[in-house]
This record gives sequence, structure tokens and C-alpha cells, in this order.
Amino acid sequence: MQNLFVIKISGNIIDEKARLHLFLTQLAALPGNKILVHGGGRIATQIGDKMGIESKYIDGRRITDAETIDVVTMVYAGLLNKQIVAFLQAKACNALGLSGVDANILPAIKRPVNEVDYGFVGDILSHEINTTFLKTLLEAGSTLVMAPITHDKKGQLLNTNADTIAQEIAKAMSAYFNTTLIYLFEKSGVLLDINNENSAIALLKRADYLKLKTPDRTNGKAVIFEGMIPKLDNAFAAITAGVTNVIIGKAEDLTELIKGNKGTTITHA
Amino acid sequence: MQNLFVIKISGNIIDEKARLHLFLTQLAALPGNKILVHGGGRIATQIGDKMGIESKYIDGRRITDAETIDVVTMVYAGLLNKQIVAFLQAKACNALGLSGVDANILPAIKRPVNEVDYGFVGDILSHEINTTFLKTLLEAGSTLVMAPITHDKKGQLLNTNADTIAQEIAKAMSAYFNTTLIYLFEKSGVLLDINNENSAIALLKRADYLKLKTPDRTNGKAVIFEGMIPKLDNAFAAITAGVTNVIIGKAEDLTELIKGNKGTTITHA
Repeated sequence: MQNLFVIKISGNIIDEKARLHLFLTQLAALPGNKILVHGGGRIATQIGDKMGIESKYIDGRRITDAETIDVVTMVYAGLLNKQIVAFLQAKACNALGLSGVDANILPAIKRPVNEVDYGFVGDILSHEINTTFLKTLLEAGSTLVMAPITHDKKGQLLNTNADTIAQEIAKAMSAYFNTTLIYLFEKSGVLLDINNENSAIALLKRADYLKLKTPDRTNGKAVIFEGMIPKLDNAFAAITAGVTNVIIGKAEDLTELIKGNKGTTITHA
Repeated sequence: MQNLFVIKISGNIIDEKARLHLFLTQLAALPGNKILVHGGGRIATQIGDKMGIESKYIDGRRITDAETIDVVTMVYAGLLNKQIVAFLQAKACNALGLSGVDANILPAIKRPVNEVDYGFVGDILSHEINTTFLKTLLEAGSTLVMAPITHDKKGQLLNTNADTIAQEIAKAMSAYFNTTLIYLFEKSGVLLDINNENSAIALLKRADYLKLKTPDRTNGKAVIFEGMIPKLDNAFAAITAGVTNVIIGKAEDLTELIKGNKGTTITHA
């Protein structure tokens, strides 16, 4: 089985051109099969503002109305996606930009309205991911750059969380590749002390994680920062579903993360 | 040799949703290999206006400054491209959106500044078109939807005329396919009388064209409308370069154009 890296970069790095370019230069030099999933950062909000479109949030979650789906499609699948592809191409990396709409790679359903109407947000139909086509593109030597736009197969574009896309693609592709899922964010890894960037756990196994996420009897707090727990639960769920390992760390450390010299590597056992 | 249709739609049809959908429905139903090249229509200007970016023209030609290349990349490669792909997917056509940047399909050079600085405008490096990859995608059953954005291989996105892209792709792909190039616009074909939509020439051969474009001795006017001459010169150049034939007509007549029941079919002899 060949190796595949599915790498998700967060919005913050997209907002900082110098850091983004440092990361992309490392990505271009990384041998093997690669799928990069990117979010959008502040630029979608900034462009929406310029166009007089108000960003709406409920409980910190963005509501994607009809105007907003147009803006995120433009910015994510257009501007950012093609800028990233052009940069990688300049670094001799054969990048190909995609969204989940293209070749029906990521069919989704519009999230049903319960208490909150999130608008044009798509939940991926995991079992319908077009893995055959992704495999064809990787075999043709392409590095895939995926914008977080999906569709409902009835012509409606949908906005989908980039973390979820990376996870679903990694799970689905693990049938064909020895797959590593890499989440790149603002911290140097999973920290034992949230205030200390040097406290990253190098290797996190499931048994250790269960202990570290259990709240302490005296102060009711777990060792692992609360905000990390959903991300780590997802990481272990990906591993249960066939992903070989998950790496968490800073985008600009990509090369060192893969070598295991920095960040946190999460494995089953 | 298999057939390939390279089809270019003009901005006007993109601005009219009902006509666009009528055309795309016919395109979805058309069997065989297909590459659609689309321009942008008025929407790029409208979105630029909303963002407070002024459109600049010299002699009727758009100047692509740094702000404008961002807007056209967003609108052409993002919004319009993904809306077209989602519509085709809903019609069971396996569409895949691309720009010339992706997989280095259309490498270009920034147009040199002579009397006029057109800004970030790209002239395609015809002999470097990635025909191998286009062939791979077509063989995988994809209908390709191409936005008119190229790049300089050094990280700079460039704006390129969609007519030229369609012509260059058709010429390059004619080495592998029996290629028909279709230009869709506002007229029912090449008209003998510009004021009469029923005067389309069904079949235009090179020898006849040379006669029809020669100015009349009495009034100095050619039979063929002056504005059509560059388009027709390009059509015959494409045929000289290996394209089997060129069809000109209305987008909503696509099926009938291919059958030869409407529009103008241009052939060598």
C-alpha cells in the first residue's frame, strides 16, 4: 500500500501569507500522494463586508444564507484555491484544485433544520465519496487541493466544515492507502499545559488519551485542554475507521511533524 | 478516433439563468467527450462594483490590475464554475471544474507591455498545454468545465480570453480526438444579412468565405459583418491546425447545431 497524506490547514495560516508560503513550500517538497484541504480564514468575511453582506452567527457558528454561499464559493473555491494551486505549481508540485462538487467527489445533504437553521450547510454522505476518481487523480501524479464546498446533487452548493472533509476523505481513502491525517493549527501539538508550547505530547495512544481526558477528582479539570477534546475524539474515530495515524501541530513545522520530531502523533496503540 | 466537442459560451448567456440552464441541460444530454469553456459576463463587473473596485478599459479591452485579477479569479473559477458544475451534476453529467492553473493545463506568459499595459493578462503557451492530463480526465468520463484563468508558472494568476482558450484547447486536442469547436453567441450563425436572423449560412467553406469577406467594389462592404471576421479567421486557423470543424450559433440551439439543422458549420472544403 502506498502512503497518502491528507492535510488540513486552518483559516489562520491562510490569513498570513508568509506562513502559508512557508507551509506550501514544505508541502511541495514532500514526496508521495497528498490531499490538502483548506478553509477560508478571515478573507471571506472581509470580502462579504466589502460587498455589504453581513456575516451571521448563531452560538459562534456561521449561518450560510444564499448570499453567503455565493461569497464562500467565490473565495474558497475560486480565489484561495487557485492562489494555492498557482503557488504549488511554481514550486514544481503538480497541484490540482477541486471542490467537493467537482466529479461529485463529496455529495452531501443540506443539514436538516432543527432548533437552528444553518442555511446552506452540507453534511457529507460518507459512503458516496468518489474515492475511485480521487485515486485516479493521485495515480496521475496530482496533488489535490480541496476547497470546502460540497453539493446536494440537485444543483445546490453547500458549505462544509474543512476539518470534517479532511476526516471523511482520510477515512474513505484508507481503503486504498496507508493514510496519515494531519491537522495543522495554532498550537505546537496536543499540550499537557495549554500555556506551554513546549509541553506537546509526542505520541498519544488511545489508553493514555482516555486517562488524560478524564477530569481530575480534586479540581474537575482534565489534563488535556477542553477545546481539544472534540478534535481528539475525531482523530481516534478516524483511526478506528482505518486511518493509520493522525498528526497535530503547526503548519510551518510540516516536515518535522511527519518525521515525528515535532507535534503530536496519535496512534491506536 | 473518438469525438470531442470543445464548446465556448459567451458572457451574455451566463447572465441569463434560464437560457444558461436550457443550454446546460442540452450539454448534459450530449454523448461523448466534452470540454466547456466559459467566460464571465457582467457578474464580475457587478461584484467588483459592490467591492468598490473600478473596472478599467482601454479601447474597449478590460485592464486586469491586481484587484481585478482577484475578482475574476473568484467569480470565474469560483462562483460561476462551481454553479455550472453543480447544475450539470444534477443533470447526471459528470462535470469537473478546472482553471488553466490546475495541473498546469494552460501555462501562459503575462502579456508584454507595449503601447498598452493590459495588466495580469496571459497569452497561452500553446505548445505546453497539458493535453495528456486533459485526455486522462476525459478517459475517466469527466465533462470538463474550464474557467478562463491561467498562470505564469511563477505563482501569478492571469486572465485569458475564453475564445482563445477554446481555440487553443481544440487545436491541441485535435492530435487525439476528432475535434469540433463550437462558439456559442447571440446570433443564429454567420449571417448573410446582419439584420436577419434567418439568413445564417448553413455551411461555410474556405473558398466561399474568402469571397464573402472581400469588400464589394461598389460600396466597399463585405457580405459578412465586419465584427465576425476575426472570429471566422480564427475558426479557419483552427481548422488548418487540425480541428475537424467549427460550429457557430446560439447556445440554446446546441443539439440542433450539432445535427447541422441550425447555425453555421465551418469546414475546410
